[in-house]
Amino acid sequence: VKPLHERDLPRGFRYSATASGLKKTGGLDLAMISAAQPVSAAAMFTTNVVQAAPVRLSRRQLRRSRGRVRAVVVNSGNANCATGPAGEAAARATARRAAAELGCRPEQVLVCSTGVIGVPLAVGKILAALPPLAFRGGADAAAFRRVARAIMTTDTRPKWASAAARIGGRGVRIAGCAKGAGMIHPRMATMLAFLVTDAKMRPALLQRALREAVAQTFNAISVDGDTSTNDTTVLLASGASGVRVASETDYRRFVAALENVCRELALAIVADGEGARHVVEVVVRGAHRRRDAEQVAATIATSPLVKTALAGADPNWGRILAAAGRAGVRFNPERATIRMAGIKVFARGRALPFDERRAHRRLLSPTLKLELDLGGRGKAEARYWTCDFTAEYVRINASYRT
Amino acid sequence: VKPLHERDLPRGFRYSATASGLKKTGGLDLAMISAAQPVSAAAMFTTNVVQAAPVRLSRRQLRRSRGRVRAVVVNSGNANCATGPAGEAAARATARRAAAELGCRPEQVLVCSTGVIGVPLAVGKILAALPPLAFRGGADAAAFRRVARAIMTTDTRPKWASAAARIGGRGVRIAGCAKGAGMIHPRMATMLAFLVTDAKMRPALLQRALREAVAQTFNAISVDGDTSTNDTTVLLASGASGVRVASETDYRRFVAALENVCRELALAIVADGEGARHVVEVVVRGAHRRRDAEQVAATIATSPLVKTALAGADPNWGRILAAAGRAGVRFNPERATIRMAGIKVFARGRALPFDERRAHRRLLSPTLKLELDLGGRGKAEARYWTCDFTAEYVRINASYRT
Repeated sequence: VKPLHERDLPRGFRYSATASGLKKTGGLDLAMISAAQPVSAAAMFTTNVVQAAPVRLSRRQLRRSRGRVRAVVVNSGNANCATGPAGEAAARATARRAAAELGCRPEQVLVCSTGVIGVPLAVGKILAALPPLAFRGGADAAAFRRVARAIMTTDTRPKWASAAARIGGRGVRIAGCAKGAGMIHPRMATMLAFLVTDAKMRPALLQRALREAVAQTFNAISVDGDTSTNDTTVLLASGASGVRVASETDYRRFVAALENVCRELALAIVADGEGARHVVEVVVRGAHRRRDAEQVAATIATSPLVKTALAGADPNWGRILAAAGRAGVRFNPERATIRMAGIKVFARGRALPFDERRAHRRLLSPTLKLELDLGGRGKAEARYWTCDFTAEYVRINASYRT
Repeated sequence: VKPLHERDLPRGFRYSATASGLKKTGGLDLAMISAAQPVSAAAMFTTNVVQAAPVRLSRRQLRRSRGRVRAVVVNSGNANCATGPAGEAAARATARRAAAELGCRPEQVLVCSTGVIGVPLAVGKILAALPPLAFRGGADAAAFRRVARAIMTTDTRPKWASAAARIGGRGVRIAGCAKGAGMIHPRMATMLAFLVTDAKMRPALLQRALREAVAQTFNAISVDGDTSTNDTTVLLASGASGVRVASETDYRRFVAALENVCRELALAIVADGEGARHVVEVVVRGAHRRRDAEQVAATIATSPLVKTALAGADPNWGRILAAAGRAGVRFNPERATIRMAGIKVFARGRALPFDERRAHRRLLSPTLKLELDLGGRGKAEARYWTCDFTAEYVRINASYRT
């Protein structure tokens, strides 16, 4: 993670974080990103059928407020999921109290939670901490970094990223912070990402931009293949730069910058995956349709056999081929080519001779690439990022705690 | 695995096994099951797009012989997969040589391979070993057990099972042996199962019976979610009992017995899964369609988070719920119920109070059940067997070998 400076932050937002007491460690566990006026908002939520109370509430709020919100409130330490009607009430109370402090309507506040599933949320702690939270905070990088720390659960380090785009000769800024990696810890859940920009955009266009950027980044990473019940990505646009994103050219530039921020955060999540020692980019080419390429890449990236081979830096291309073969996409293995860490190991239906020791050494690198060309006439390709699957991952996730 | 006696074996088959030199250890690695005349045959093969040469050949042979075959030849130690035209030729040569020894047509011989992927098959060793293999062997239980050992790769023990069915007041017998567990080892592949019966059945009916039995057994187990390139199940019916399976009642009795044999073998495979300490039955009820129940059960059974929790005997129902939620099947979590090892831990959308220590103790059992009732109006249900995911599994599969 690169350092975050004052000049990297978009104008028009305040960041505040506090320790409300939800984390037993006494660490930061409650954060707010707010704006002085309603700003354009976009969000994407988990596709899991089981959705936490804050996810359901925020989805409703976004609709009711027509994509114009004042704040996002996030707590870590408890996912408020599978907590019944009390959980629903807790999420609503959080939005209501924050709205009262900010002087806005409750539907102008989005709420996110991450942490333990199935344990009642001690919402009293949040409600008590909200008035000072809404009052304090700052617009500076130190305040932003505190928010990045407050949303952490099993993360070993905070994650932030920023980018700038030049639109009509003027600059807009995008910054974001994220936590988690899929659903990765005992009773812990969730990937959360919060993005802010000072570009001027309508909520519908903002939503389109977010959807595009997320598809190629947050939706193209895996640590363990499990989708959390709380996943949420929020993008707020203050418009404080005065630069309107209107033309298709402007939009493409904005999306490119947004995608850069999202990709940096997504890769930071994979690199921080439990027990992970390698960040691996899976590239699939030569597919008929982009969807086919994505499906094959995702199957390789989530195969336990591929991921354990990577943990051992084993140039085991047979597992890549076998995983690709069960992805549900037709291709001719006789025309496929596989490269591991740049070394061509398989072509035209059979193994190529290669130096196993050299391949092993290359696979020890902390970042590496697996490339599969399906050999079809299609030109579609897809990328997917994953990490290796280590004994440490199992130890962390098998540990029993009362 | 229960002992296998003389009386458990169907009449009409010979079993032989030898050490051809494919296994570096010098262990048994080549086996043949044969009949004196052509017998009815049925088979099911891997659905992986990448298919080993013997799989492609056997599929063709079965069609060309119209389901009347004389023998199955199996080698372990090399999967003959991703071996190009030479691999195709090796499989064909094996069938041809065996046919010459048995005095039948080449298409009346099926061929199966299991072991390393992508390494040329030393077919010369097989061809040299085939004449004595076809000549020796026996119809007794000792010979059958040698076949069960010869097909092993990373299995820690041979696996066999048998059952009898009473049809029209007379008995028919079914016996089988199997190896592997999904695709579970560095460069090793495959689940293979060989089933024999002395019932009298047409090939088409035999195929229908095999398909039914496999769906509920071999196709409802997972060790690591990876489908091999060589998976094959073969069922041969000698008719030597003189008992014809014709009526629907006869057929149902036969399938029930066949399913018992397949289930016993399937569970033996899961129990022998690499690093596994628990055999876990996942039961999903209250689904609208059987397919929905199967999909949810399979998603739970292959979730790394569920499987690592099981390794730690952690009553972590949140992971079961979250895995079910991403299975692509609509259900209302507010109506779902979860039981772990018989303890109800979740109902009506929230956690139930339960004694964590007691649950932990129960989850330490070598066999246990996870039950999820989706709470829908449908009555469809499905079962799926899996094992826990241990650090030992990762160690085995990450180990680098030159």
